[in-house]
Amino acid sequence: MTYEVSVNIMPHQGLLDPQGKAVHQGLNKIGLAQVSDVRIGKKIVLHIDASDEKEALAIAQESCTKVLVNAVMETADISILKLA
Amino acid sequence: MTYEVSVNIMPHQGLLDPQGKAVHQGLNKIGLAQVSDVRIGKKIVLHIDASDEKEALAIAQESCTKVLVNAVMETADISILKLA
Repeated sequence: MTYEVSVNIMPHQGLLDPQGKAVHQGLNKIGLAQVSDVRIGKKIVLHIDASDEKEALAIAQESCTKVLVNAVMETADISILKLA
Repeated sequence: MTYEVSVNIMPHQGLLDPQGKAVHQGLNKIGLAQVSDVRIGKKIVLHIDASDEKEALAIAQESCTKVLVNAVMETADISILKLA
């Protein structure tokens, strides 16, 4: 069965996010002063072939640890969206 | 009131995603052959000062159109997470 797994990766709270800061300044400059903070992360959608949800989750977690997430700077949350 | 708004931006379905393809090959190479597809997008979290949810949503939509999203290549979905 193929599972669609969504991985949301954000920079740690409190850590400087220069990309977000640049976008924040850009938005303010074009008149969107109501935007008071911007943080930018990644959203990665994986299709995983697994026999059940638990196995899919384990593979997603392994992918995060080994490749997708830098645990020093980022936090990830994984959610199984649906069967693709 | 400050609203926390999450904007998920993904490359259009069917459009080539070279970053996702590279990560997909990388995962397969280290033995995670169960991963059959990878697509990579952005997750942007905005803090927006607005009097109600409707106003916050309108500001988020304007931010997307003017700065955050390239409508030719990307689709965005906006959701109000909570009051920050």
